[in-house]
Amino acid sequence: MTTRPTLAQLGLNTGKKARLHRILHHHGLRNGTALFLPYDQGLEHGPRDFFANPAASDPRYILKLAIEGNFNGIAIQVGLAEKFYWEYAGEVPLILKLNGKTDLPPDAEALSPVHASVADAVRLGADAVGYTLYVGTPAQERDFAQYQEIRRDAHRYGMPLIVWAYPRGAAVEAKGGKDSFYAVDYAARTASELGADVVKVNFPRPEKREGVKPPYDAEFTSQQAIEAVVRSANRTLVLVSGGEKAGDEAMLEKARQSMEAGATGLIFGRNVWQRAHDESLRFVSQLAEILAKYPST
Amino acid sequence: MTTRPTLAQLGLNTGKKARLHRILHHHGLRNGTALFLPYDQGLEHGPRDFFANPAASDPRYILKLAIEGNFNGIAIQVGLAEKFYWEYAGEVPLILKLNGKTDLPPDAEALSPVHASVADAVRLGADAVGYTLYVGTPAQERDFAQYQEIRRDAHRYGMPLIVWAYPRGAAVEAKGGKDSFYAVDYAARTASELGADVVKVNFPRPEKREGVKPPYDAEFTSQQAIEAVVRSANRTLVLVSGGEKAGDEAMLEKARQSMEAGATGLIFGRNVWQRAHDESLRFVSQLAEILAKYPST
Amino acid sequence: MTTRPTLAQLGLNTGKKARLHRILHHHGLRNGTALFLPYDQGLEHGPRDFFANPAASDPRYILKLAIEGNFNGIAIQVGLAEKFYWEYAGEVPLILKLNGKTDLPPDAEALSPVHASVADAVRLGADAVGYTLYVGTPAQERDFAQYQEIRRDAHRYGMPLIVWAYPRGAAVEAKGGKDSFYAVDYAARTASELGADVVKVNFPRPEKREGVKPPYDAEFTSQQAIEAVVRSANRTLVLVSGGEKAGDEAMLEKARQSMEAGATGLIFGRNVWQRAHDESLRFVSQLAEILAKYPST
Amino acid sequence: MTTRPTLAQLGLNTGKKARLHRILHHHGLRNGTALFLPYDQGLEHGPRDFFANPAASDPRYILKLAIEGNFNGIAIQVGLAEKFYWEYAGEVPLILKLNGKTDLPPDAEALSPVHASVADAVRLGADAVGYTLYVGTPAQERDFAQYQEIRRDAHRYGMPLIVWAYPRGAAVEAKGGKDSFYAVDYAARTASELGADVVKVNFPRPEKREGVKPPYDAEFTSQQAIEAVVRSANRTLVLVSGGEKAGDEAMLEKARQSMEAGATGLIFGRNVWQRAHDESLRFVSQLAEILAKYPST
Amino acid sequence: MTTRPTLAQLGLNTGKKARLHRILHHHGLRNGTALFLPYDQGLEHGPRDFFANPAASDPRYILKLAIEGNFNGIAIQVGLAEKFYWEYAGEVPLILKLNGKTDLPPDAEALSPVHASVADAVRLGADAVGYTLYVGTPAQERDFAQYQEIRRDAHRYGMPLIVWAYPRGAAVEAKGGKDSFYAVDYAARTASELGADVVKVNFPRPEKREGVKPPYDAEFTSQQAIEAVVRSANRTLVLVSGGEKAGDEAMLEKARQSMEAGATGLIFGRNVWQRAHDESLRFVSQLAEILAKYPST
Repeated sequence: MTTRPTLAQLGLNTGKKARLHRILHHHGLRNGTALFLPYDQGLEHGPRDFFANPAASDPRYILKLAIEGNFNGIAIQVGLAEKFYWEYAGEVPLILKLNGKTDLPPDAEALSPVHASVADAVRLGADAVGYTLYVGTPAQERDFAQYQEIRRDAHRYGMPLIVWAYPRGAAVEAKGGKDSFYAVDYAARTASELGADVVKVNFPRPEKREGVKPPYDAEFTSQQAIEAVVRSANRTLVLVSGGEKAGDEAMLEKARQSMEAGATGLIFGRNVWQRAHDESLRFVSQLAEILAKYPST
Repeated sequence: MTTRPTLAQLGLNTGKKARLHRILHHHGLRNGTALFLPYDQGLEHGPRDFFANPAASDPRYILKLAIEGNFNGIAIQVGLAEKFYWEYAGEVPLILKLNGKTDLPPDAEALSPVHASVADAVRLGADAVGYTLYVGTPAQERDFAQYQEIRRDAHRYGMPLIVWAYPRGAAVEAKGGKDSFYAVDYAARTASELGADVVKVNFPRPEKREGVKPPYDAEFTSQQAIEAVVRSANRTLVLVSGGEKAGDEAMLEKARQSMEAGATGLIFGRNVWQRAHDESLRFVSQLAEILAKYPST
Repeated sequence: MTTRPTLAQLGLNTGKKARLHRILHHHGLRNGTALFLPYDQGLEHGPRDFFANPAASDPRYILKLAIEGNFNGIAIQVGLAEKFYWEYAGEVPLILKLNGKTDLPPDAEALSPVHASVADAVRLGADAVGYTLYVGTPAQERDFAQYQEIRRDAHRYGMPLIVWAYPRGAAVEAKGGKDSFYAVDYAARTASELGADVVKVNFPRPEKREGVKPPYDAEFTSQQAIEAVVRSANRTLVLVSGGEKAGDEAMLEKARQSMEAGATGLIFGRNVWQRAHDESLRFVSQLAEILAKYPST
Repeated sequence: MTTRPTLAQLGLNTGKKARLHRILHHHGLRNGTALFLPYDQGLEHGPRDFFANPAASDPRYILKLAIEGNFNGIAIQVGLAEKFYWEYAGEVPLILKLNGKTDLPPDAEALSPVHASVADAVRLGADAVGYTLYVGTPAQERDFAQYQEIRRDAHRYGMPLIVWAYPRGAAVEAKGGKDSFYAVDYAARTASELGADVVKVNFPRPEKREGVKPPYDAEFTSQQAIEAVVRSANRTLVLVSGGEKAGDEAMLEKARQSMEAGATGLIFGRNVWQRAHDESLRFVSQLAEILAKYPST
Repeated sequence: MTTRPTLAQLGLNTGKKARLHRILHHHGLRNGTALFLPYDQGLEHGPRDFFANPAASDPRYILKLAIEGNFNGIAIQVGLAEKFYWEYAGEVPLILKLNGKTDLPPDAEALSPVHASVADAVRLGADAVGYTLYVGTPAQERDFAQYQEIRRDAHRYGMPLIVWAYPRGAAVEAKGGKDSFYAVDYAARTASELGADVVKVNFPRPEKREGVKPPYDAEFTSQQAIEAVVRSANRTLVLVSGGEKAGDEAMLEKARQSMEAGATGLIFGRNVWQRAHDESLRFVSQLAEILAKYPST
């Protein structure tokens, strides 16, 4: 098992530390773990994601869910933040997502264009910003360029930077796919090397071995894989993503293994709100039970 | 009695609302009231203020006191924020004081020079900034000029602006002095007219009537006076200052009257830390008992 | 006795910590103490200071003395740094003094104008910058304004900021003079409140009690006084200045008391180079003997 | 044999000279030679490089190794510098690597995108910056463009610029490959022509003659080849890279020949940390023995 | 006797060295000495200076005189440079004077306002810029501020900076006057401390002892005085000014003593052109005879 680093060890400047402390110790379980609610799918996938539970199309519904569910933060784009967050400002931490894209154009040269700034996040009282980095994309050059500017501003304003580290692109597909252990491990490390304070990763699938580089072509359990990923991220805190909605037991098991491996928390969206309101809260309370077992100072 | 306005009524932008919500509802009694600990006296008066309780010379002692005493915020200058706040970042809200001065040169043209910026406050994860406005000073022109810049930045960054509204200067002395009802009432209104989100005032003394303009030369109870001051401040939240250390009963009575009048809270420094540690906490708990009676949403 | 804080406690960003570590642990005695050689008198007093030892007029002589004497740094203005430091670049740490003035015009509204930038210091490979703050001057407003800019740049570049905290001006003269315990204590605190990383003070003279504010009008030993000054500076490291050349025993005693009080080091100029070369080194070795007794990590 | 130039001959400005002096004369053997530890493989190759010695996945382990092994510097990306260097700031010189890439996308148009700035390096207290220049890539135009900006800033801040001069791209492959004498010699010269202060090259392999331009198609010993490379670099100091882990004797022989040829030092990563801790230090001490034979002033 | 430093010792960047080399070794006697023709009196004193030789009112006449007289440079303001230098561009080095003032307003707070930039000097092909610094003026703060900007630009563009170091102001008058040994020595040192590459001083008058600080109140010969001044300037090259027209023998003797003391050259205006054309050239040839005796490399 990997031990989760404390905030004091991370080399954070005062503002980043204050804001992460607030997220991890003044919201949610207040025990150093985190449960985030991502709600950027309206841009990333379009409204098709809301048909399973039409109420979820309403950002106000989701914000209230984040508060009722005692989440540590909600991750949204600037438009929804402007129109909806003011009503609940300060009740749940805001993670402003700074880039995003539709999934209409092909993904061959995946790049998530920036559409908001760290200054927007400061102005809106956010406690963190989010950036999607497409690790392995041929558009790496432009990706790093826009990322660098956001990293610099996040440092300057003392704003924690959460990187959605997503393996993507033809080369990734040819080398085991975007959720292979190889790809997820590389993505976590890349976020860390480039200065993310927190990294959001998909749960790695070590069984996807076709085309991966050694030693990833050997056998690993999923527990071994997620532990390696957390280790690769080192002092970058790890959030494990829920991804597409799947069976509850499988999701809870992933959550358990992630926390056991030293992850700081979970970021579950569709698995939470693609069901009826009370079902959502019930599922969230199961996640909270797991997080409660992994406190840190 | 004046009714305290709710955050939703104040016309605040999202960031200011988020940060004030955090101060008023995620710290202290979490009931919409506030108790602040000011610690700028080392600059304003010099270390002489610390001889009564030498431990109070150590900013770390004061920060811990703010946390133990469950304060809603601590107001310090940038140097102490840089050197001490990192250790407790996020545990108690930081109010960064942006101007200040020594009391060595004469006070005839009192002006509190700016030595830090709203950007510093953002960077340090502060939840508000403080500015001393010397109402009535002949240096009014330069005062308003530097104030305007800070108000503009505070708006841009969504940072609540707390104005220390202090009547000061020869004209003030000639017209009843700096804590006359006349002067304090005028100061509260000035802060409100100039865009303060919160105003810190001294408790008004209606008995100081010599030289004041009518109708302040009539008789008023102190309760009437503080109610008028809160009314003058309108949608600028009012904090009442403790000032120099005085008898506990007198201080608690001032606190009661202030809260009854609709003040949002108290800002007590020397009355708190110019005594031994446990005595400080005991006094704070008496203040908290009063605040507990004036919740708001 | 006051305990000297370690670098890890000071809330320094990485660059400031790296540069202070270099000064305190890779030069001089490498034990966390410091002995600095100031050489800005050619500007502050003019060449008259060099007649006692004409060789000292030559900056190259002084630079070599700093290296031979195993100093932790030499403090010079930009002109001498440009023309002389290149030859010994990196052999002894450079503290670039960013402001200064001639003593030709009257001192009533003392202000030390800025004539070099933190960017100059970076470009010259300096390990710290120096700024003279005239605590108590009527020109406080302009002083704080130019100081703020330098503090901001020093933070941005990770450059340690050493403040020459000098009480000065008519008000100071009327209240005990520039080296009274009252004035020196206030000056040390002011530097700390405004964000100095290191403060240079004159040794306080508690016997100068005429006109000082209470409780400084009571009796204090010089040991008590210097301990209070170090305490007022808290996490701002203290350097004690030698000032004008005086008897060796008196100077060494001041040095001893300063280090005993928790000062980090000494900054002695005229007492060092206003004598023949070998005499300078002999005196320096006596200072080093004292510093050797106060190591820190 | 080629004579190594002294710092005084290199036309360096004061800051670059101060920082290189620090690296070469205040760290390592303090004899003008250098042994650097590169640790950018987590980004360049991904975590797969760490499976040989899992401890090496932890940047803190590597930083401590750099200090224990008495290295002259450690070369890392900005993320690891932010999160780990603060703890050891100043104990070992930091070389901030300003560009880098994953090896996921194809290498046909190799370009190493910039993700950090010289200003970041200054802020972190670095003593040099590193830039990977892909000599021969079809992306030469964008490579030179981003390089020019970094060279300009490095000059402006007095920050030594170390160029990783790597022949790369289809044309290079067709003309002898990336480590042919022809390619390495050309790369060293390119770095020098473009203003590198130090160049990192792979050890040239004169036996790779297929497709190289004359006269590189004649027979050369490896000693002749490395001497030519150092000569081509002229007043750009040469560091020879270890590259992939190989047999110790072969590596030590390369090191000997490099130093004999006038190289300033070695930059060995995987050969050092892809083995157990004590084995690493033992190997490093063998390298140090070689460097000790080639002092310069 | 003080030895004149060589260009290689001055820590100049390449551009400054190239331009000074051009002035000192490609013009005039080409022996490292310099004779400059200042022609800024039309602004500083008005046309009254031209009545002694009306031809001197015509800048073209003066430019031709500079060429015929084999001067190392001509110092003029931007207006004359624009209108006249183009015709002789490159034939004699241009020193662009960047500040200046009329002598109409009182001199109590003397300040010479900037009216041209270093960029103007580059654009006009100048080989140096000139700046008048009024050492001792109460306007020191504004003087240093505008000087700093010019020093920075001169460094950035590699343009030698010649400082007209003039003691001025009431304090100076009260302490021996503007050409006392005390004042001139202080002025030379100030220019050096602030980064002048070359300093223009008046010949010191040690007999002016009333009000000067010790040890300047002792007896010194003029040879001793000028030697001290050159020593105070250290690696800032010294030009001695002719000042008002005086007897030839006295002027030549000053020139001899200056060069003997280690000055780099002379800057004589009114003594040259306030007489008929051939007389001017005859006097210049006498100065050249002196300079010829003090070559340097």
